[in-house]
Amino acid sequence: MNTQTHAPVRQLQSHIAGRWFGTQPGALLRSAVNGQPVARTHADAIDFGEAVDFARRVGGPALLALDFQQRAQRLKALAKYLLEHKETLYAISAHTGATRVDSAIDIEGGTGTLFAYASMGGNELPSGNLIHEGPATPLGKTNRFAGSHILVPRQGLAVHINAFNFPVWGLLEKFAPCFLAGMPCIGKPATATSYLTEALVRLVDASGILPPGAMQLVIGGTGDLLDRLDGRDVVTFTGSADTAATLRTHPNVVRQSIAFNAEADSLNCAILAPDVTPDDEEFDLYVKEVAREMTVKAGQKCTAIRRAIVPRRHLDALAQALRARLAKTVVGDPSLAAVRMGALASQAQLADVAGRVALLQQGAETVCSGADGFAPQGEGVAEGAFFAPTLLLSRQPLQHDAVHDIEAFGPVSTLMAYDDLDEALALAARGRGSLVGTLVTRDPAVAARVIPVAAAHHGRMLILDREAAAESTGHGSPLPMLKHGGPGRAGGGEELGGIRAVRHYLQRAAIQGSPTMLAAVTGEHVRGAQVIETEVHPFRRHFEDLRIGESLLTHRRTVTEADIVNFGGVSGDYFYMHFDAIAAQDTQFGQRIAHGYFVLSAAAGLFVSPAPGPVLANYGLDTLRFVKPVPIGDTIQARLTAKRKIDRNRTDARGIGQGVVAWDVEVTNQHGELVASYDILTLVAKRA
Amino acid sequence: MNTQTHAPVRQLQSHIAGRWFGTQPGALLRSAVNGQPVARTHADAIDFGEAVDFARRVGGPALLALDFQQRAQRLKALAKYLLEHKETLYAISAHTGATRVDSAIDIEGGTGTLFAYASMGGNELPSGNLIHEGPATPLGKTNRFAGSHILVPRQGLAVHINAFNFPVWGLLEKFAPCFLAGMPCIGKPATATSYLTEALVRLVDASGILPPGAMQLVIGGTGDLLDRLDGRDVVTFTGSADTAATLRTHPNVVRQSIAFNAEADSLNCAILAPDVTPDDEEFDLYVKEVAREMTVKAGQKCTAIRRAIVPRRHLDALAQALRARLAKTVVGDPSLAAVRMGALASQAQLADVAGRVALLQQGAETVCSGADGFAPQGEGVAEGAFFAPTLLLSRQPLQHDAVHDIEAFGPVSTLMAYDDLDEALALAARGRGSLVGTLVTRDPAVAARVIPVAAAHHGRMLILDREAAAESTGHGSPLPMLKHGGPGRAGGGEELGGIRAVRHYLQRAAIQGSPTMLAAVTGEHVRGAQVIETEVHPFRRHFEDLRIGESLLTHRRTVTEADIVNFGGVSGDYFYMHFDAIAAQDTQFGQRIAHGYFVLSAAAGLFVSPAPGPVLANYGLDTLRFVKPVPIGDTIQARLTAKRKIDRNRTDARGIGQGVVAWDVEVTNQHGELVASYDILTLVAKRA
Repeated sequence: MNTQTHAPVRQLQSHIAGRWFGTQPGALLRSAVNGQPVARTHADAIDFGEAVDFARRVGGPALLALDFQQRAQRLKALAKYLLEHKETLYAISAHTGATRVDSAIDIEGGTGTLFAYASMGGNELPSGNLIHEGPATPLGKTNRFAGSHILVPRQGLAVHINAFNFPVWGLLEKFAPCFLAGMPCIGKPATATSYLTEALVRLVDASGILPPGAMQLVIGGTGDLLDRLDGRDVVTFTGSADTAATLRTHPNVVRQSIAFNAEADSLNCAILAPDVTPDDEEFDLYVKEVAREMTVKAGQKCTAIRRAIVPRRHLDALAQALRARLAKTVVGDPSLAAVRMGALASQAQLADVAGRVALLQQGAETVCSGADGFAPQGEGVAEGAFFAPTLLLSRQPLQHDAVHDIEAFGPVSTLMAYDDLDEALALAARGRGSLVGTLVTRDPAVAARVIPVAAAHHGRMLILDREAAAESTGHGSPLPMLKHGGPGRAGGGEELGGIRAVRHYLQRAAIQGSPTMLAAVTGEHVRGAQVIETEVHPFRRHFEDLRIGESLLTHRRTVTEADIVNFGGVSGDYFYMHFDAIAAQDTQFGQRIAHGYFVLSAAAGLFVSPAPGPVLANYGLDTLRFVKPVPIGDTIQARLTAKRKIDRNRTDARGIGQGVVAWDVEVTNQHGELVASYDILTLVAKRA
Repeated sequence: MNTQTHAPVRQLQSHIAGRWFGTQPGALLRSAVNGQPVARTHADAIDFGEAVDFARRVGGPALLALDFQQRAQRLKALAKYLLEHKETLYAISAHTGATRVDSAIDIEGGTGTLFAYASMGGNELPSGNLIHEGPATPLGKTNRFAGSHILVPRQGLAVHINAFNFPVWGLLEKFAPCFLAGMPCIGKPATATSYLTEALVRLVDASGILPPGAMQLVIGGTGDLLDRLDGRDVVTFTGSADTAATLRTHPNVVRQSIAFNAEADSLNCAILAPDVTPDDEEFDLYVKEVAREMTVKAGQKCTAIRRAIVPRRHLDALAQALRARLAKTVVGDPSLAAVRMGALASQAQLADVAGRVALLQQGAETVCSGADGFAPQGEGVAEGAFFAPTLLLSRQPLQHDAVHDIEAFGPVSTLMAYDDLDEALALAARGRGSLVGTLVTRDPAVAARVIPVAAAHHGRMLILDREAAAESTGHGSPLPMLKHGGPGRAGGGEELGGIRAVRHYLQRAAIQGSPTMLAAVTGEHVRGAQVIETEVHPFRRHFEDLRIGESLLTHRRTVTEADIVNFGGVSGDYFYMHFDAIAAQDTQFGQRIAHGYFVLSAAAGLFVSPAPGPVLANYGLDTLRFVKPVPIGDTIQARLTAKRKIDRNRTDARGIGQGVVAWDVEVTNQHGELVASYDILTLVAKRA
């Protein structure tokens, strides 16, 4: 079945200030598969002042009426909604020339990114809209003046400018961390495939899950949008290095130091290490990875492998293996079951790729190309933007500038020979900054040598061997938890990488003041801050009732020789420092001391509230430091203070609402000296 | 005594490729105090190709022949050396118009920054030249493929371009983290006071402490230096917004996405909160802080308070108090004992400040200025660049654009009235991005409201009250451990802020592969990686002999009811989950379970090696998570694996060399399920 031919020509609209806008027909956008019209942009001019004002006045406050945790929940709901409606997007995606697999990368890669950020946001972000990037550090001798860092909403908006190749993922991977940060955005997809992004934003709008103003959409040009931004705002861009340079030097972006992040196409490489022989599984893994990166999305990925750097002795064997593999790749209308590679995005792209391949061929041999009787399958494909997988070969790549400089943004790669690992590294570096590189090796020592050097030029490095292959997500796939973006030619930007990406949309500020002031600002107890002491044991407070700073100073306990003996008996820990009076004399402490874990256990005995109560579990402990030894005869005492509360809006299996409470614990001796210091993590029930 | 008049005119030289360079006399630099010639730049053209090549070819490798820990030690040695020779710098600093106190900020602020980075580097950085920014995360279900991040040397150099006001601190605060990161640098001070920076670099050179190529110096212009950089390099700048914009849009900086960091002057504010009355200590603190920020360095600080935002009802009282305080500030030749404020840096600065004050005065009242009979003290001061403390007053500051836009870089501030806290915040935001802001308040609730909002526009916020005042380092002082740099007008950059700053000079890359490969690359054990099991207990290995991945799988232990009873007796922890069979039935676990701290203690009993040996102490524990409960009858077992080694080149009190070893601990039950997971931190002796 060919779904494209009967598709109506849709009138695309921008989504500005809560309304769908644009009725005057603009540019016609055609199917990449058969050249049939798919959609029209609108010719009506957008009032970007209104868009920016709506983001600032409506979007920002609406987003910040929720907190990190609530936005994480919205993200999850949105991901589910989009997944339920994914076939709407698949049907439209087919016009872009994408196979079902290509579309999955875009569509389910996009929803997967939302799910991942929903999960990371829920697990790693606090309640509220401020991140305390502690710990607070005393800046004077008596801890009356301390310093720390906070991350706060920037009070601005983000403009996300995207490339044509991932109309869904491209917007969603930028949106997810930006939304978590509480920043409204304006998406500006590349016009060629903007019909798919428009369909996505219509689904988002129909879902009703996002607050008003969280996501606006621009179909067409950005007009004077960038002139209307200021230092609170962020511009993110994925696309060509030339466009990145134009945006980066936009006078208003420069004048107001507007945060700008670029992801540019790069000449990514894959190195086959010298330890791999044609008999190794890794040899085949290398061939498969290069072939896959050439053909997925018809090679239209900013992460695709453009330079295959291989040992000279295997050059011809690899050329043969790759040619054979590529020859089996059926190219044509992606709606046909047999087809494995679809079309380029447009006739314009086709012409561009063909021109660049011609330049590359001037200094390289051609292993396979469209000259080998290329005939894409399907009806009407003569009007489609199909390009044959094209493999070139360079025997003296250090003398061949073009293969390191010219990117043909299609199913095109160049095999290049190296003589030793240093030369392989030098060739990799000739890309002058890439998004990603792959090393295929069996030898951890080779990885240990190559990766730290190559990493200076790459945003991400994949090490592929038979072990990793079982679960590898592949060279070309950016993942939500890993940084995406490379230095130099790749734009010098950084996206994704887990919660790091959320921080990019927040403003970091150092804060200084008394611990009491820092506690008030961060919403977390800071050592030295005033505490709240009441008659009620803080462990008997429900989550909602407990205030940060509620504190218990326990009764005391003298640590005796019998304690050490008994603790040794229970734990089985007869370390000489606790039990061998002769050897203990020779230590820095000069005598037997109590087990650190005894001090920890005895402190729990001091602050425990034994009867059933709101504290459901102590599930962890962080940054424990045994600051001073506790010799026999010392008397210890503990202070337990509510430090941090996180409401993840969760309930346990029995339906009891609960939140996370972290407690600061200080164990001191009879001189008031700190002997142990740590945080404990508890789950605390909410009121029924 | 007047030291300036007899100073010889020094011929300044650049320090390029390990040589002092330049003999042809260039521009004459004059004393700010009395206009006498102090030094001459050189007119000889620098070969910047040689400088860049030397940094790359000699400096980079020499720096990376040391590791983070060794560079931290060199920093400390350099700090000590410079402190011993500080009087050389004080003598020269006097020519810049600085008082002894001003010079201390520059000189001892500079050496203090070196000390701080030496200390933070030693404590927080690993051995080697790679930072593992973990934890590694499984990317598949069976943990055969995982991801993490590393920070590696960029293989480039840094160009540090500085302003005239802090010739010593300015270079050293950029150099310290850059050097720790292993990156060579070229310092380019502002010409006007370059004679002091030159003296600093001569001391650095004479110390012999730095590897060759670690620090080069450019006296005069940068010629084609920026054209010779590429994506591996970093340019940092402190100075005016205009120059920042020029550098940021330099074609080669843009084309190659060269990392660029700017710190620009900003119109920093100090807000007096409405809760403070003239009877409060905080009222006086506010007056003192504003007056100090106006007069220290004659107000030539990018962090100085330019806008004093105060409750309208206190406006006139504050104007009076500030006028009185400023009137007592003796201005003149800083070599005179009574003098509290020196000169501006040059006649050019004097003219510039006077011009800007005239513009500011058009919309403001003048509380005090040079018109009040200004007469600086000292000989020859008529030729000096002295400017009187000038306080302006704006009653309708929301209608007065100039006070939020025009910065007079001298002892100049404007008092402005607000009616409520929202208006105060709106006025603060009118600076469109500042390096620092101060809030003087007694009320933590006011701080909690103001700081998160104001922080969006500021790199740093100081909260001042009587408590903090005892140890406050003041509004204007950037500290090594706190971020320096603000959004928007302030340049959008980020310097200092502890080890963050070191990371800015490294390249972050995501890495993916099998846990074994990730362990090889990061030099740290990663869960799931192959371990090394030997006959020797890993606790019996000296630091040098222990390999990452050496691992012990312990014997087992069945947890019995008696264990729980005994542990309760020893610890005093009779929590119902361990002791109340009735209540325990109602928990999510449905039965009594062992204490988490028992599991921890029993695990220590399983892996301890009791006799004296190389493991000297277990000083801490990180990220403990009780993953599953351990009910009566479960049988536990521990795996202990050497995870990370850090050699800080330290010895204990008895002269025994020691290093830090972190161990990964996994406690499992009879089903092989993880029940507890944590890292323990130990000190391990080196071989005698």
